[in-house]
Amino acid sequence: MQRYFVSPDAIQDERVRITGDDVKHITRVLRMQPGAQVICADGTGRSYLVRLTELGQDAAVGDIIKPLQENVEPEVKLTLVQGLPKGDKMDLIVQKGTEVGITHFVPVETARTIVQYDAKKESKRRDRWQRIAKEAAEQAHRTVIPMIEEVQPFRQWLAQKAASFDLILLAYEGETPHGLRQELDRHAGGVSDTGGSIALIVGPEGGLDPEEVAVATQSGARVITLGPRILRTETAGPVAAAMILYHFGQMGG
Amino acid sequence: MQRYFVSPDAIQDERVRITGDDVKHITRVLRMQPGAQVICADGTGRSYLVRLTELGQDAAVGDIIKPLQENVEPEVKLTLVQGLPKGDKMDLIVQKGTEVGITHFVPVETARTIVQYDAKKESKRRDRWQRIAKEAAEQAHRTVIPMIEEVQPFRQWLAQKAASFDLILLAYEGETPHGLRQELDRHAGGVSDTGGSIALIVGPEGGLDPEEVAVATQSGARVITLGPRILRTETAGPVAAAMILYHFGQMGG
Repeated sequence: MQRYFVSPDAIQDERVRITGDDVKHITRVLRMQPGAQVICADGTGRSYLVRLTELGQDAAVGDIIKPLQENVEPEVKLTLVQGLPKGDKMDLIVQKGTEVGITHFVPVETARTIVQYDAKKESKRRDRWQRIAKEAAEQAHRTVIPMIEEVQPFRQWLAQKAASFDLILLAYEGETPHGLRQELDRHAGGVSDTGGSIALIVGPEGGLDPEEVAVATQSGARVITLGPRILRTETAGPVAAAMILYHFGQMGG
Repeated sequence: MQRYFVSPDAIQDERVRITGDDVKHITRVLRMQPGAQVICADGTGRSYLVRLTELGQDAAVGDIIKPLQENVEPEVKLTLVQGLPKGDKMDLIVQKGTEVGITHFVPVETARTIVQYDAKKESKRRDRWQRIAKEAAEQAHRTVIPMIEEVQPFRQWLAQKAASFDLILLAYEGETPHGLRQELDRHAGGVSDTGGSIALIVGPEGGLDPEEVAVATQSGARVITLGPRILRTETAGPVAAAMILYHFGQMGG
């Protein structure tokens, strides 16, 4: 069944009001008629089966038939701290990471980040990533839209945010890293299949520099390898996310 | 260090002869000089440290310094049987699947395959996928280039090849599927972290049809879920491959 995200305040008195581009999708692309059923999720984890009643130019309105008990969000909350890659690779990372089950993306500037910062383009770019996350979340039947945080310096993220995670993993080949399973097994800081928060740090194309790795480990990050086959930067995050969620039984058992 | 694949017969008498596009890459892109060192892999699992001695227009020749003991190939051999997706998605599947560690790709036509078969385009397309696999294998530091088999009807693959695998997994949401871990744990047919062969079947965008699933299960395929978040067809293969190899300790432990 077709799924749409609406803002929580679009749901009132057992009625849902869909606005924006989704209206065109409902009326012109799918040519739905009054009576058609869709699923509406409010982006915070609640979703509803809805029967459309009024299809207008600017809004599609429907009645809630029933709330749905969808258990699609991972218990383990995963944040991907991604060194800004070149070109449009971040688009792919956000799309695939959202399908797999990442809940937060933090694009960071690192010592070897090649991308030029441009404040004007910055908000446009973030809007695009957020839109990609919304579309991927709908397609994946998620009930939460992952959040894309502002691009920020990697060290600022470490200083301000690292302490709030139960576990921080840093994919890096430069040292003598441990296997992912070893770190997940030994970790006693509160991550289990019933919850916890993990941050996964992935460098840009050129990798993190050794000083950044040192600062990260001082902030509590554990250096891990993702194996002997070198994954591209845009592959590492979604693939490692899948392995982490699989480890905790969050990929279908 | 820069890596190049050469055919096994390009290695003779402790010397390696690099030909084709890689020569331009060595001389014009990287502007290497005689004395520079590269790694040459023969695509069957052997690799060598090589010192270049002659850089010509059509060939770069070098002396083998020593064979390398690179242990990068998974012990578990993974074949992805992929329902042909639309557009250029197969490119992404081959690239990402190669990075993760798939060794065989079999593009198959299924009941819901939308792509039109075109014998003329067919060989070009396969050449492109094989080239993508080679480049991804070099980048990932693999010593084997994954093989792209000919596009073939799904039922033909089932009839001719299914029996040769230790385990066949079919990602499908239509039935009451088991979790991936459950199937990997219970399987007694010879897959372990010391070897075995697994085929993973992923349908195209529209999925496999129920009759195809029935024929596959009669051929021994086990229906699995990849979890409650629906993965796009181009995401499912590489992501499931990572989880399977992680399960057997082949992603760095």
